[in-house]
Amino acid sequence: MELRGKVLVAQGGGPTAVINQSLVGAVLESRKFSQVTKVYGAEHGVEGIVNENFLDLTQETTHNLEQVAKTPSSALLSTRIKPDEKFCREMFEIMKGHDIRYFFYIGGNDSSDTVRIVNHYAEIANYEFRAIHIPKTVDNDLMMNDHTPGYGSAARYVASAFSGVNLDNRAMGGVYIGVVMGRSAGFLTAAASLAQKYPDDGPHLVYLPERIFDIDDFLKDVKEVYDKYGRCIVAVSEGIVDKNKTPVSQLSGMKQEFDAHGNVQLSGSGVLGDFLADLVKTRLNISRVRADTFGYLQRSFLGCVSDVDQREAREVGEKAAQFAIWNRVDGSIAIERTGFYSVDYKLVPLETVAAKTRLMPDEFINLAGNHVTDDFKYYLRPLIGSGFEQAHRLRAPKVDKVVFK
Amino acid sequence: MELRGKVLVAQGGGPTAVINQSLVGAVLESRKFSQVTKVYGAEHGVEGIVNENFLDLTQETTHNLEQVAKTPSSALLSTRIKPDEKFCREMFEIMKGHDIRYFFYIGGNDSSDTVRIVNHYAEIANYEFRAIHIPKTVDNDLMMNDHTPGYGSAARYVASAFSGVNLDNRAMGGVYIGVVMGRSAGFLTAAASLAQKYPDDGPHLVYLPERIFDIDDFLKDVKEVYDKYGRCIVAVSEGIVDKNKTPVSQLSGMKQEFDAHGNVQLSGSGVLGDFLADLVKTRLNISRVRADTFGYLQRSFLGCVSDVDQREAREVGEKAAQFAIWNRVDGSIAIERTGFYSVDYKLVPLETVAAKTRLMPDEFINLAGNHVTDDFKYYLRPLIGSGFEQAHRLRAPKVDKVVFK
Repeated sequence: MELRGKVLVAQGGGPTAVINQSLVGAVLESRKFSQVTKVYGAEHGVEGIVNENFLDLTQETTHNLEQVAKTPSSALLSTRIKPDEKFCREMFEIMKGHDIRYFFYIGGNDSSDTVRIVNHYAEIANYEFRAIHIPKTVDNDLMMNDHTPGYGSAARYVASAFSGVNLDNRAMGGVYIGVVMGRSAGFLTAAASLAQKYPDDGPHLVYLPERIFDIDDFLKDVKEVYDKYGRCIVAVSEGIVDKNKTPVSQLSGMKQEFDAHGNVQLSGSGVLGDFLADLVKTRLNISRVRADTFGYLQRSFLGCVSDVDQREAREVGEKAAQFAIWNRVDGSIAIERTGFYSVDYKLVPLETVAAKTRLMPDEFINLAGNHVTDDFKYYLRPLIGSGFEQAHRLRAPKVDKVVFK
Repeated sequence: MELRGKVLVAQGGGPTAVINQSLVGAVLESRKFSQVTKVYGAEHGVEGIVNENFLDLTQETTHNLEQVAKTPSSALLSTRIKPDEKFCREMFEIMKGHDIRYFFYIGGNDSSDTVRIVNHYAEIANYEFRAIHIPKTVDNDLMMNDHTPGYGSAARYVASAFSGVNLDNRAMGGVYIGVVMGRSAGFLTAAASLAQKYPDDGPHLVYLPERIFDIDDFLKDVKEVYDKYGRCIVAVSEGIVDKNKTPVSQLSGMKQEFDAHGNVQLSGSGVLGDFLADLVKTRLNISRVRADTFGYLQRSFLGCVSDVDQREAREVGEKAAQFAIWNRVDGSIAIERTGFYSVDYKLVPLETVAAKTRLMPDEFINLAGNHVTDDFKYYLRPLIGSGFEQAHRLRAPKVDKVVFK
């Protein structure tokens, strides 16, 4: 017998450029099933659920859903709340009160854990309930996934930014430091490497949170590149730590802010970039040193999106509805790479994804720990999608001197 | 009789997304004339001229020139040197030594002054010489121009960035401050306003260097918006000054760097954004406050370009060659708006552009001095080009409460 009832979709954590594709994929697919009585969306993620704050997405046009799908950032709005057991139980009670039988939660590894706990309460209550976690994160740090929706578009932004900055720095000279998001996993920072086309192109150095950051080694690396090319471009993760696991941003001695989880606030501040730029200026005596912190632009910039990422984000949403409604199973949707380039989707147990973090594997990082390998570039290239712009140089011959000959 | 000899093209100042369109326009048009014996390009602007560092652009394929045209940042590389009289005289002597009869210099208002002085030495030497300044600047601050090539693409970047950040902030809440380039003129910061679609969209506040920045007024403005919408997005020019003409970034008390002209370094540092964010946190007691400094991304980001800007940048280069070679006149190319939307190009005297700065006119700034007018939006809209992405929202009805009724 079919499980008749409502579908609820929600979005959690930081937005991505394609998170609404997953929302719309789940909504449109769910609306096809006769046993689905309504499709609801919760506003502000789990907050909207405990507050019974729902939108009736059955009463939204297909055209507008398609327009929303192409819009970055969570259309259902988001939350940073990480529900505890009590919170999850309240969520379950509200869902039960609305006869919600299918719950699709789009988010990172915390969201996967939330889905797991809510599902647990449904089991205790002997309430038939299908709950699926739909992956998203620009950090690309979910276990069991070849990569995660949201990463390809953010990676495209980072690669485009470093491509432009490389051209700018080539024209103007000096040292440039770009600080990229990613607390524990360096995947997004590593995407800067796709800006390299010609052998002397930047980023010349890439520092990832997977390797210990040593200030003296950093300065030695910068000096070596600067001596060779007369310029140097550095991509650095906001999450880099020193050998004592202290975030490098804290070494600056500048005032720092901490979030509710006790983590130092990394994004939305220029401290790390300014600190590193100051080190290069004073210790290497290089006059033109600039640092930019990419901040929020990299996860929401309008018009910089990977078509591959869009399609996959759409499909993970569709697959959630198909697994739950056709197959009546729970779990987390995972992307599996099946060729160069093709993917398939499988359902993995929630606990294999929940509250775990996937880091860059060793084969993606060079031995010196200051750049990526070609293995990584081959892994990343298809994810940033088609139409990635190419930089071109003049190749005209030099003119012989006639005045100073 | 035709003036037979070589053409020299160079690029100066900060790069833009379309400065190579002007280069290629001038080169391809010059190559059509039989009296042009060669077309040279100087590397690193005026530095390349005094060092006799030329490329022979007659020996460059049309295909590669077209590829370079689409690439951001100065393909001939650039310089920050502002030549004095002696330097200009040396430049002239080198050009004379190579039988250069046509000189096209692509740059901002300083470049226009350089062209004027070099031309002066040619007159004294009774050497027939045509010199034309080709405008470019992301700041849009050249006199005599409706707008300048480079501005439209940078404005598109800023508008796209604020569109994305608005969606992000709407999902996550809090206060967001984006710091945009522009020392004296606020045109680029003002471009943030095109991110506004729905009435509650950001940027809610726009602070320009044309108006005095008062910290108390700023905090009052932010509080008002935050109380109304539960969030607030601020666009602020890096060049804002207080009533004593002190750059606001200096009020932070943090270490600042000064350039060769004695100006405080504004770009490539997060100081201003961090200072304003800290004020909002501590004085308004708002916990989630983030600041991003857009830095170099806004003038070189690969793949964010206005097609209108590209075409016009190409045309000013072509027109330089046509004015100099057909009409044998000197001056600066200026863009005149002839309709909504169409332009024409005229040649204006170099001294009307040289070393002057155009600011935002009063009708583009609101009375309170904390936003732009619709006049400005109407002025800017065609310049950012076609295909500017639109954000869309869900419009589904709220669901009646059944648990908490």
